[in-house]
Amino acid sequence: MAYYENVGKVAYEGSQSQNPFAFKFYNADEVVMGKKMSEHLKFAMAYWHTLTAEGSDPFGATTAVRPWHSYSGIDLAKARVEAGFEFMDKMGLEYFCFHDIDITPEGSSLKEFFANIDTIVDLIESNMKSSGKKLLWNTANMFTNPRFVHGAASTCNADVYAHAAAQIKKGLEVGKRLGGENYVFWGGREGYMSLLNTDMKLEQDNIARMFHMAVDYAKEIGFDAQFLIEPKPKEPTKHQYDFDAATTISFLQKYDLAKHFKLNLEANHATLAGHTFEHELRVARINGMLGSLDANQGDMLLGWDTDEFPVNVYDATLTLYEVLQNDGLGKGGINFDAKVRRDSFEADDLFLAHIAGMDTYAKGLKVAAKLIEDRAFEKVIEERYSSFSEGIGADVVAGKTTLASLAEYAMNNETPRANKSGRQEHLQSILNQYIYG
Amino acid sequence: MAYYENVGKVAYEGSQSQNPFAFKFYNADEVVMGKKMSEHLKFAMAYWHTLTAEGSDPFGATTAVRPWHSYSGIDLAKARVEAGFEFMDKMGLEYFCFHDIDITPEGSSLKEFFANIDTIVDLIESNMKSSGKKLLWNTANMFTNPRFVHGAASTCNADVYAHAAAQIKKGLEVGKRLGGENYVFWGGREGYMSLLNTDMKLEQDNIARMFHMAVDYAKEIGFDAQFLIEPKPKEPTKHQYDFDAATTISFLQKYDLAKHFKLNLEANHATLAGHTFEHELRVARINGMLGSLDANQGDMLLGWDTDEFPVNVYDATLTLYEVLQNDGLGKGGINFDAKVRRDSFEADDLFLAHIAGMDTYAKGLKVAAKLIEDRAFEKVIEERYSSFSEGIGADVVAGKTTLASLAEYAMNNETPRANKSGRQEHLQSILNQYIYG
Amino acid sequence: MAYYENVGKVAYEGSQSQNPFAFKFYNADEVVMGKKMSEHLKFAMAYWHTLTAEGSDPFGATTAVRPWHSYSGIDLAKARVEAGFEFMDKMGLEYFCFHDIDITPEGSSLKEFFANIDTIVDLIESNMKSSGKKLLWNTANMFTNPRFVHGAASTCNADVYAHAAAQIKKGLEVGKRLGGENYVFWGGREGYMSLLNTDMKLEQDNIARMFHMAVDYAKEIGFDAQFLIEPKPKEPTKHQYDFDAATTISFLQKYDLAKHFKLNLEANHATLAGHTFEHELRVARINGMLGSLDANQGDMLLGWDTDEFPVNVYDATLTLYEVLQNDGLGKGGINFDAKVRRDSFEADDLFLAHIAGMDTYAKGLKVAAKLIEDRAFEKVIEERYSSFSEGIGADVVAGKTTLASLAEYAMNNETPRANKSGRQEHLQSILNQYIYG
Amino acid sequence: MAYYENVGKVAYEGSQSQNPFAFKFYNADEVVMGKKMSEHLKFAMAYWHTLTAEGSDPFGATTAVRPWHSYSGIDLAKARVEAGFEFMDKMGLEYFCFHDIDITPEGSSLKEFFANIDTIVDLIESNMKSSGKKLLWNTANMFTNPRFVHGAASTCNADVYAHAAAQIKKGLEVGKRLGGENYVFWGGREGYMSLLNTDMKLEQDNIARMFHMAVDYAKEIGFDAQFLIEPKPKEPTKHQYDFDAATTISFLQKYDLAKHFKLNLEANHATLAGHTFEHELRVARINGMLGSLDANQGDMLLGWDTDEFPVNVYDATLTLYEVLQNDGLGKGGINFDAKVRRDSFEADDLFLAHIAGMDTYAKGLKVAAKLIEDRAFEKVIEERYSSFSEGIGADVVAGKTTLASLAEYAMNNETPRANKSGRQEHLQSILNQYIYG
Repeated sequence: MAYYENVGKVAYEGSQSQNPFAFKFYNADEVVMGKKMSEHLKFAMAYWHTLTAEGSDPFGATTAVRPWHSYSGIDLAKARVEAGFEFMDKMGLEYFCFHDIDITPEGSSLKEFFANIDTIVDLIESNMKSSGKKLLWNTANMFTNPRFVHGAASTCNADVYAHAAAQIKKGLEVGKRLGGENYVFWGGREGYMSLLNTDMKLEQDNIARMFHMAVDYAKEIGFDAQFLIEPKPKEPTKHQYDFDAATTISFLQKYDLAKHFKLNLEANHATLAGHTFEHELRVARINGMLGSLDANQGDMLLGWDTDEFPVNVYDATLTLYEVLQNDGLGKGGINFDAKVRRDSFEADDLFLAHIAGMDTYAKGLKVAAKLIEDRAFEKVIEERYSSFSEGIGADVVAGKTTLASLAEYAMNNETPRANKSGRQEHLQSILNQYIYG
Repeated sequence: MAYYENVGKVAYEGSQSQNPFAFKFYNADEVVMGKKMSEHLKFAMAYWHTLTAEGSDPFGATTAVRPWHSYSGIDLAKARVEAGFEFMDKMGLEYFCFHDIDITPEGSSLKEFFANIDTIVDLIESNMKSSGKKLLWNTANMFTNPRFVHGAASTCNADVYAHAAAQIKKGLEVGKRLGGENYVFWGGREGYMSLLNTDMKLEQDNIARMFHMAVDYAKEIGFDAQFLIEPKPKEPTKHQYDFDAATTISFLQKYDLAKHFKLNLEANHATLAGHTFEHELRVARINGMLGSLDANQGDMLLGWDTDEFPVNVYDATLTLYEVLQNDGLGKGGINFDAKVRRDSFEADDLFLAHIAGMDTYAKGLKVAAKLIEDRAFEKVIEERYSSFSEGIGADVVAGKTTLASLAEYAMNNETPRANKSGRQEHLQSILNQYIYG
Repeated sequence: MAYYENVGKVAYEGSQSQNPFAFKFYNADEVVMGKKMSEHLKFAMAYWHTLTAEGSDPFGATTAVRPWHSYSGIDLAKARVEAGFEFMDKMGLEYFCFHDIDITPEGSSLKEFFANIDTIVDLIESNMKSSGKKLLWNTANMFTNPRFVHGAASTCNADVYAHAAAQIKKGLEVGKRLGGENYVFWGGREGYMSLLNTDMKLEQDNIARMFHMAVDYAKEIGFDAQFLIEPKPKEPTKHQYDFDAATTISFLQKYDLAKHFKLNLEANHATLAGHTFEHELRVARINGMLGSLDANQGDMLLGWDTDEFPVNVYDATLTLYEVLQNDGLGKGGINFDAKVRRDSFEADDLFLAHIAGMDTYAKGLKVAAKLIEDRAFEKVIEERYSSFSEGIGADVVAGKTTLASLAEYAMNNETPRANKSGRQEHLQSILNQYIYG
Repeated sequence: MAYYENVGKVAYEGSQSQNPFAFKFYNADEVVMGKKMSEHLKFAMAYWHTLTAEGSDPFGATTAVRPWHSYSGIDLAKARVEAGFEFMDKMGLEYFCFHDIDITPEGSSLKEFFANIDTIVDLIESNMKSSGKKLLWNTANMFTNPRFVHGAASTCNADVYAHAAAQIKKGLEVGKRLGGENYVFWGGREGYMSLLNTDMKLEQDNIARMFHMAVDYAKEIGFDAQFLIEPKPKEPTKHQYDFDAATTISFLQKYDLAKHFKLNLEANHATLAGHTFEHELRVARINGMLGSLDANQGDMLLGWDTDEFPVNVYDATLTLYEVLQNDGLGKGGINFDAKVRRDSFEADDLFLAHIAGMDTYAKGLKVAAKLIEDRAFEKVIEERYSSFSEGIGADVVAGKTTLASLAEYAMNNETPRANKSGRQEHLQSILNQYIYG
């Protein structure tokens, strides 16, 4: 049975196509820098945005028109699985991601919840087998249920902490069963609403304890997924502990967790933290922590997580530039943590939005690859820092200098090297030429 | 004598050119929608950024290397005129804009200042004649001198107010003499630092009085330039009265000045006020107030006026879309109120940066023109609002309805029209296709 | 029957009280500047935050524990009325405000909705009679229902427009019946998500048409409430047309509506628009448009409407300073458009939060009154602008000057008045002394 | 000779004093929690804001009227020393802080610069001896001179790097000679303008190398000051590497520098990074990295470093709450990195502004002390987290649990502890009561 009757398989038709339901730039089998686009771009469907959420916002009820609206309860959960695999198939998405509560109702007890999960995971597993689709990552939602009002691993209520541990344990087991390539932690309530009532140190210590237990349990059950933390600075809480890449790295270093985790970085979370996405990617990359991407974009004039589909080719280019410089994402991929606007409420919009995002990333990939193949920026950077490859600069890098030796050099250096222009505007022109030329 | 020895006339060489000092997209004589690019894009050199400012910032001294550094005093002022005309000639810029203090030292009295102005205006005038370059607009700088610490037209010091009036009077006379097509007011200090010591009503009344006097004087001397106000929400003051387009319009309406003024809108000022540039342009356009543009771009993660050269083709496309929908800018033009980064300190960067900006606007113009020729968005909008072209909707527009008649209609309307998706993501895809396709 | 069993009547116990359920600063009968505190501070309960909303956020389910959770449907609606009047009684709140959908379920048709409204309004009316509580304002919610996904008065669907008209008509009738002192319009969906699909001019024209129809209908039925528009710059839409006070005033001027409307200003909306609340109040005040207040506060580091209870005495002081300078709010009042934090989910928190807000405003009122009685800032301002009360400054204000006469004065003025320090830091010290001294 | 003739010694006169040049709350000898106010509040004069900067901004020239305007060159430098000690004496400031270029002209070579420094340091030293004033910290300005346009320790020019090393070496020697209690690094240009031309990893590696050399040299010369890094997220660069406390900690951890450094935190830098000041203090405190404070405040509606004098008692209270919880600042102190507004240009304003700041911190200290003495918030927090002091919670903290053991507990826990309200609004009321009660 088809849930999405209006749309068939979405195919590549090229940049001049007038067919709304065709790719203009994403050509899965096209080879870029020696690999297929589809290998570079391990796109994943976000279960929650595509199958669960339906367009409510803080001032408005749901608007979405969806083909499963005649179902409820566990039948609804099953219908969503089927619709999801149909969607992935038609869109050519090879991966998906989910939170535990996305796939099934929680029921009235942990036992019931886990039983529901098992039922749906059975169905997911059989769909995976028949379709070849893969699990990029799963995670436990520990922020929606009222029990997590004060946090999960950072809660002030030890019983809630135990509940969170049970959910994570189940999540790891599900991940292992479905062959998940990664496992994600996003601490939506791991932060504070007010410092006046918060023991920040105990909360962070407890989060670290939970992470160590998760690492141990994954090892115990032989689940070798890459663990990922997804930073976000705020929303829903006033302040989340995993504020950004650097903050999360400092936490992982402090608690001796850095070797077990990488980062799942999201574009909109980056900008909410005051950074460009490429900044966050660069910080992760030079620290060996770049794990996976949540692809979306924010609105720079809005102060909340708008989770828009990525449609900006500049951003996509600079994103994939970092990914290519990182030799790809390893086990990671590119999850569309993006939702259709509330006023794009028809099922067709789900396709149109994913096409928009996939085309944007495809275009960005090709531009980034060309920039790297031509060493367009690398040549400039190599030349720019060349004074550290010889003489006193090489001594600095080799650790052979002291303040005294450098001071002596400086005092006696009658013709210091002149600075040269950083040429930012010209580099931006070159970027435009690569994108539009 | 050549001030810019490294660079000759900048020519169009097409999108594949490797010549840094060539246009890749801006082709002055290319015809777009029936007019030459150069007619659509009346680019102007901003005297202050190109010839006067030299790269200082609040934490750093000037860095610029400029070919007039051997001159000082009035000789420096003259050298800048010559260098400016050489620059315009080589860049193919037909227009320029200046503040009074950009072109000459203030000296120690108004008399000396005005005499200096006359000397330099003589030189400018003769260069205009020989080169054919034109004055897009001039203005009086009433924010740099310490005398304006509390404002100019909004000052608490009546003698300063009189001084400002004298500068405006001179500015109008200079504008008339040089055939200025517009005259601009930017109230950099017309606002407040603290409400605790501010009489906001008196200050705004006094600004309106000054504007009326300026209107009268221009009429008296037969200066028929378009008067323009340039909104900016803040910086240098905490709050400027001309916060944005709508605020400025409300001021002009209140004081019966709307028929004498239009708006000179700047991209970076728009975003500092929390708006996209296209929003500000739209607001001005539908109110008949779109006068002229200050072309630049801000950094959305920085909270001050960075005045970067515009290099984003999305923004340029949406900007020129509004301009084309407005049937152009009339007497207005496109002033590069943009400065090279402090670390782009070589004279060559001035060329490279203008090339970046002009190419970006050229590309944006072509995309915008194609969108309009194809009615790509118009068709969608026409269909979207079609219910207001017939039946009850047409009655609303025609003013024939009342709450009661509409309520009766609604109560008895058993099958109201369903809403349709706004299709935002698809429209963004179409925009990408027009830009990259 | 008591819904709030833990709490009795909240009384004033003074600043040293250890009783959480007592006022420390708000003393209803205390006379300030010749009027009782309760007359200055016409506090209103916001029906939606106190009785309807229950703590959900975009990432979490409701958390609130409320005494009416055993009810549903129309019985729940009735229970909320009773609980609301008990709450107002215990808190000493004399006013309340509501949207139509706060008080009753919408049902499946306009007819059913209006019938439900009538049922609940009967109950409200009888409670008003017995308690003496008054309606500060009511309004129609035209943003939550999916039908308003594209706006209400700015919708692209004429049938939705008619529906909105019906709701407003009913709202005006309810307001008249309950003796509402004001009637509010907040255009939560009157704006746009994307300019790409928006006809801004038609939308604004249609809003103006709706307002004129509302004015006419109120006149027709003899409802003499003050009409109020509540500006907000964004959220839920990307951009709302009533961005801020100045923008709303420009709209009202353009469409000849200014004489029928004033502004209902909200603190959190002010800061989202980039203004202090006192700025918005000042703008409204000097334009004769200060109507009523939505009292709350935002978090300056969060980019969405947090609607926190006002607990900052600086803000309250400067707010009430403007109100006192305006000779009060006329028909307007002070509506607590504020919600308890999601993690303050107990019913007791509703009391504690209102106590926090009322105490803050009470303290602010007393400080503001003292500042005005002492003319602490007025003396400074009078002196500061004194040059406009005599000589050339008085001529400016009287309209007797021209650019030429002022220029002549300036050219010949050999000893212009020196500027004096604005003394901002000292004025801030004085403010601190008044608050803490 | 007196530079500040209008003002004598500023004395404490109590909260009712009408004398602008008296303290209303700061009473140096008053004992709070067993120590004198002056011991808690090791206030320092910032040389640059008080003696060097004169009110320019990006749009305006200097406005300050200062008593040393008749001097120039090294005589001006000497006059400033004398004026500075007079100012500290009159204000009752026991400490001061400076950058190398604040105290003397740079001259035309490093040799000349260092000779000038020696001359002025002689004078400073003799003034310190006679007055008893102390050096809180000094630092090298490596951001103003054009040579540092691309950074100092992060420059791409090895000769500039050597120059920076020479300045740091001299700074450490000066610090040792003057008995400086701390030595500060603020990396105003240690960041980037564009990632397109930046080798972030090399730059950060080089910064770490410089820090290690500085640590070594201080040890070599026996200078035992506390080293401090001052985070700032941006301005003047687009992105600074020491973005905030957590980022800086991650850097220090990575490069094995954490044991040698603490943080010098600034209020305005905190808010520019998206944090409250108390957040930054808390992060530093729980990581043992709280070193010293730069006291000021930003304007939350302005996106640049406004460096205003701190006048908000809420902020001061929460700041000193963290300081008291930290058992003070050790060698650190409270430097007024604050400048009078450009329109507060008279010398008297320097006094009035410092009075405003010192009174604010004094009031905040007393409130914070009372909160701690009463354990007003601590009691709440202790109770709130009590479930981690017993049973399963204590097991978690003791590291005795696993995911499996916690899951088993959760599955079998039929009556989990209910969450309790976080009571944020009530805690805010309590804070108000402590401040105003």
